[in-house]
Amino acid sequence: MSDLQQALDIIGRGAEEILKPDELAAKLKLGRPLRIKAGFDPTAPDLHIGHTVLLNKMRQFQDLGHQVIFLIGDFTGMIGDPTGKNATRKPLTREDVLANARTYADQVFKVLDKERTEVRFNAEWFGQMSAADMIKLAAQHTVARMLERDDFAKRYAGQQPIAIHEFLYPLVQGYDSVALKADVELGGTDQKFNLLMGRGLQEHFGQPPQVVLTMPLLEGLDGVNKMSKSLGNTIGINEPAIDIVTKTLKIGDALMWRWFELLSFDVSLADLARMKQDVAAGQLNPRDAKLMLARELAARFQGAAAADNAIAGWHAVVRGEGDTALLEQVDIPVPAEGLRISALLVAAGLAASNSEASRKLKERAVKVDAEVFEDPQRAFMPGFEAVLQVGKRSFARVRLVPA
Amino acid sequence: MSDLQQALDIIGRGAEEILKPDELAAKLKLGRPLRIKAGFDPTAPDLHIGHTVLLNKMRQFQDLGHQVIFLIGDFTGMIGDPTGKNATRKPLTREDVLANARTYADQVFKVLDKERTEVRFNAEWFGQMSAADMIKLAAQHTVARMLERDDFAKRYAGQQPIAIHEFLYPLVQGYDSVALKADVELGGTDQKFNLLMGRGLQEHFGQPPQVVLTMPLLEGLDGVNKMSKSLGNTIGINEPAIDIVTKTLKIGDALMWRWFELLSFDVSLADLARMKQDVAAGQLNPRDAKLMLARELAARFQGAAAADNAIAGWHAVVRGEGDTALLEQVDIPVPAEGLRISALLVAAGLAASNSEASRKLKERAVKVDAEVFEDPQRAFMPGFEAVLQVGKRSFARVRLVPA
Repeated sequence: MSDLQQALDIIGRGAEEILKPDELAAKLKLGRPLRIKAGFDPTAPDLHIGHTVLLNKMRQFQDLGHQVIFLIGDFTGMIGDPTGKNATRKPLTREDVLANARTYADQVFKVLDKERTEVRFNAEWFGQMSAADMIKLAAQHTVARMLERDDFAKRYAGQQPIAIHEFLYPLVQGYDSVALKADVELGGTDQKFNLLMGRGLQEHFGQPPQVVLTMPLLEGLDGVNKMSKSLGNTIGINEPAIDIVTKTLKIGDALMWRWFELLSFDVSLADLARMKQDVAAGQLNPRDAKLMLARELAARFQGAAAADNAIAGWHAVVRGEGDTALLEQVDIPVPAEGLRISALLVAAGLAASNSEASRKLKERAVKVDAEVFEDPQRAFMPGFEAVLQVGKRSFARVRLVPA
Repeated sequence: MSDLQQALDIIGRGAEEILKPDELAAKLKLGRPLRIKAGFDPTAPDLHIGHTVLLNKMRQFQDLGHQVIFLIGDFTGMIGDPTGKNATRKPLTREDVLANARTYADQVFKVLDKERTEVRFNAEWFGQMSAADMIKLAAQHTVARMLERDDFAKRYAGQQPIAIHEFLYPLVQGYDSVALKADVELGGTDQKFNLLMGRGLQEHFGQPPQVVLTMPLLEGLDGVNKMSKSLGNTIGINEPAIDIVTKTLKIGDALMWRWFELLSFDVSLADLARMKQDVAAGQLNPRDAKLMLARELAARFQGAAAADNAIAGWHAVVRGEGDTALLEQVDIPVPAEGLRISALLVAAGLAASNSEASRKLKERAVKVDAEVFEDPQRAFMPGFEAVLQVGKRSFARVRLVPA
């Protein structure tokens, strides 16, 4: 298989649409790193694994040697909602934008290669643009064409107001591709209209049009609806490893294959086909496949040690066959007079506060070395070692050391 | 009758619509000069008397003590047609705009009082506006509302493309009222939508909304269609007095009353009512009423002397009862060897060139003191005086003086 075909296979994995495939192949043959653009909201991000479908595709381009441009659309964010009707869309300040960019960085570099990522802000070029140039930009599209966009068409048909500036925002996004000289733009399927806008504007400004690659929206834990915070069917990328593991292990088999396709780097499409055959033939327990997926995701977002720990904890409790020795031991400094159980649980990260710890104790939800523990007064001294447990899923293997 | 009522009567004369009359009355009571805005195309003007319907209304406001703002919309003119589809709408340069403004001045101050006219260009404020502010402006209107405008509605229904920037232009015009703090905006009935735009934007920017006053479009010489150069039914304000007179005298009686209402300053509405009664009772010949109107118009655009001259010329020829002595005598300098008839006709402004003069001579269309003249060789010497005539309508009373 040629390098080109291999690259096309990797890029095509899980993609909903590539427009146009022959243009993509021609660009890949140019022999230079391509400029891969993806745009992000300037509001404070709280990413879930659904968002990483796109980040993964960006990472795949990076692994193939291309340059990713992580574009933060701060220009329109700093305008806010000019109709004044949407109180939640307050204008962002420059400081807000930079703070949000840092929050993004904390999260997205769990997936992206920092070295091959250029973080840009579109206020860089739009902040200097004049009203006259905005009018010229607006001349590049027609009202009818804009009203063909799904959401606009529905709102117009439903007599929901569309403010005129909303027609300008897709043009702003399209012009970003001109300013960035993008070779490829990535986005969700819901972004296709806006991504195509970039092609038209690039041609108007004498540039070769970008290839548009859309990725599907990931189904959430329920396997039916798109993953969305408001539906409560997400796995956040900052969630503890044990939560990533236990949530992943509960998804249905069909969804598991989908997640493998869109979220796994470890399992190639060829491996995936084999695994499906093995499950169909009864040679592979779907649960074991899910454990692989769960471990890969937990390791990506919380590190390999935390992932192993979480898998071990899950084995220990849910199936009663695990080995808590696999849990990483944490040293906890204690004063000479020792620590009571509530302070110890807080120090081990198993309770948020002394009062929460006390409540768990009264509920008989605290175990020390697998035995229910109920004595609030006992002092644990340096040298003590045990596996602590709160509820069914929270574990810590601790060793007490002098403070 | 109170001063206020008198002002309201003058302002209301011939108006199609005043929106809202009570706001107009309240503004007139403020006791300060109101700011009366009217916008004009930045392209080279070639005005006909249809355009003066609006100018007359502006003049009436001036005569009532108000300040007129003659706004030239150069900002969008300097953008031209950004779609590139309309080759005739090339971007105007700053020099073009200033040259066109001078051409306007040459024409409009035949009607307007220069002292109470402020000439402004909207590039003054839009030239400095940012893309972000243009977006905020665009947020102040909805797509649906814009598509209600007659011409947009028709084009959309007829699947004629509407470029998005065309939705911005009414907002630009509306914002001009904000920048100018207009109290009243005048325009043709076809401008009503854009004039109302100003009201909405002024309110958004915390200003009292302007009163909108629309004037009808004047019917042309045929009495049926709107006056328009392309229909050839106009009287241009730079036409010779004799043409203004003869064209006016040919219009129908119904149109005459309409023109009196919209074009005359000399005849009040009360006078007009009396004149109509007199015509109905056979006490006034409509031809005499038309002569009054023709003289007023010719005097406004070409001066009282030229108007009298033209009326006299018309009497002399068409009715055979005029007195060419009424024609103003023009001194024509001649060299010592004298002037031949063709050069004399050119010098008197009765022929555009020697060759045209020669042709007229051959056609037996030239008269000297009412006698057909045919000798191309005769030299006219200083001291010679005569009434020259070419065709039926062109006269000059000349006196030859040494060069």
